[in-house]
Amino acid sequence: MNNPIKIAVDAMGGENSPKKIIRGIEIHNSRSNNIIYNIFGDEEIIADLIKETKLNDKNYNIIHTKNYIKDEDSPLTAAKKGKDTSMWLSIESLKNNVSDAIVSAGNTGALFVIAKLNLNMIEKIDKPALSALWPNKNGMNVVLDLGANIECNEKNLVDFSLMGSALHKSLFTNEDAKVALLNIGSEEIKGNNIIKNTYQILSEKKNSLFEFKGYIEGNHIMDGNVNVIVTDGFTGNIALKTAEGTANFITSELKKALNSSIVGKLSSFLNIKNLKKFKNKLDPRLYNGAILLGLDKPVIKSHGSTDELGFANSLRVCEQIIKGNLIDKIKKNII
Amino acid sequence: MNNPIKIAVDAMGGENSPKKIIRGIEIHNSRSNNIIYNIFGDEEIIADLIKETKLNDKNYNIIHTKNYIKDEDSPLTAAKKGKDTSMWLSIESLKNNVSDAIVSAGNTGALFVIAKLNLNMIEKIDKPALSALWPNKNGMNVVLDLGANIECNEKNLVDFSLMGSALHKSLFTNEDAKVALLNIGSEEIKGNNIIKNTYQILSEKKNSLFEFKGYIEGNHIMDGNVNVIVTDGFTGNIALKTAEGTANFITSELKKALNSSIVGKLSSFLNIKNLKKFKNKLDPRLYNGAILLGLDKPVIKSHGSTDELGFANSLRVCEQIIKGNLIDKIKKNII
Repeated sequence: MNNPIKIAVDAMGGENSPKKIIRGIEIHNSRSNNIIYNIFGDEEIIADLIKETKLNDKNYNIIHTKNYIKDEDSPLTAAKKGKDTSMWLSIESLKNNVSDAIVSAGNTGALFVIAKLNLNMIEKIDKPALSALWPNKNGMNVVLDLGANIECNEKNLVDFSLMGSALHKSLFTNEDAKVALLNIGSEEIKGNNIIKNTYQILSEKKNSLFEFKGYIEGNHIMDGNVNVIVTDGFTGNIALKTAEGTANFITSELKKALNSSIVGKLSSFLNIKNLKKFKNKLDPRLYNGAILLGLDKPVIKSHGSTDELGFANSLRVCEQIIKGNLIDKIKKNII
Repeated sequence: MNNPIKIAVDAMGGENSPKKIIRGIEIHNSRSNNIIYNIFGDEEIIADLIKETKLNDKNYNIIHTKNYIKDEDSPLTAAKKGKDTSMWLSIESLKNNVSDAIVSAGNTGALFVIAKLNLNMIEKIDKPALSALWPNKNGMNVVLDLGANIECNEKNLVDFSLMGSALHKSLFTNEDAKVALLNIGSEEIKGNNIIKNTYQILSEKKNSLFEFKGYIEGNHIMDGNVNVIVTDGFTGNIALKTAEGTANFITSELKKALNSSIVGKLSSFLNIKNLKKFKNKLDPRLYNGAILLGLDKPVIKSHGSTDELGFANSLRVCEQIIKGNLIDKIKKNII
């Protein structure tokens, strides 16, 4: 049997924590084996919650602390509060090689700052990038950067291509990584100089990790012809959130339409299985887990408002990243 | 009776033109009155098409030319081909005060370049912006810039706020314009300096045209709390196209889900009226018509692939803009 995978879990961050965290661990544990959860937070509350689950005490450790970082803390406040918070301690357990990856549903800004304070960057990577999964017609895209860096130069975007591809290959081991640069298609002026230069570099650069497929426009992100979408953090954040808003708008309009008459209600009822399939495919909990790339250990951010199922999926992302040797893949391919 | 509104129509641009153009004119004409269409293009074809309609010859003039600009022409080629194309002549008729507004479903880049060559900028506006309509929960947003300018400074974004508000008030006369700057919500770094400075200027600036509501993130564009969304052309283009792609993805997944079993098919059939209502609300033809703002005459771009109904809606946009005194509203409020 291989060594177990050790996941550091910040139990105190996000809505309905630590309850959803512990239940998420139970769900993940029922689907995986050979995982040890190092759970950081208030021991009394956590132990009580664990009693309600089927978790075996061989599968977890509780590392007690009463302090935790609040959603409204600024990253600076968070860093100052620091060393005895559940977030800090869980990240520190990566630094000390007690855990292999960390996941938190807490304050995003604080997580990044504390991770950067405690962990090293991978050599030759200048900036970390926040990446996430985004469905397409054939499977899943990795999209980055989603907000860690407002301004990026050519080297950053090339690094993101490489790190995003390594992530895609770690998560979806049977697929080839296909990279595209997010750009606009205006006839007169196509992209700024940084994007154009990056295009040039990626076109000329040979590598075994990914195939470079050129530019992609926003309306083709979900077509499934590429699976790693690279952009700066400002554009990526706007694109991701706009997609989120559009999806919410459409599904709420759809709900209104289907409920607006008795015939409508009745036929939606008959149709409920198909609509469920549809809903499942778009369920954001399935894609829960943003990954901070560029540090020499995997740092995963769960959505703060997700539920236990969503949190379980971010634990699965941790597991896959470790099994897929993400960090080694990046180190071997970085130039 | 007021003077008629004179709309210059480039009949030769876009898919299925001039057929959809003439039919679009017929639809618009049946809903409006006191409009004269100055139709530019191949007289023989156009006259034949008009024979199939109920258009009265008092309502239109045909200005004959055999030449037209192709979709694949570069803006430069287009400008060189120039003066006897249907696009050039229709824009020239604005310059000569023969028409009040122009609409084309042809080559976007060519339309902008030829419009800029022939028309003056409104005094004190440095850059024109491309704006379009985008539905929200309570009505309609004006979003700009959508790709005319990749990089924008503070003055440009302030101008866009003003022009977008003037457009919103011209189209939706009973509503107040509420402006927001598109930005990201990352805790550490909120936007770049240009956006922050623009925020400052708009917060301090008093004006009677719009209320400034601060920043908006991509996921709130469709919430309906604001109705004029301001951003640079790169970000705006990415956001609009990403929303388009997301909407297409969801509706195609929905279609698949509803057709995946006999019960599904049957109940979708029962439900067809409600689904139609849903589809109608999201029908992109309803929002057809992007407006180039900043020139001293209204230039409207219809989507090239829209049909006669979509084209009729872009004619309605022309009509509303003229009735709403868009250009005067901008001139009076510009600083």
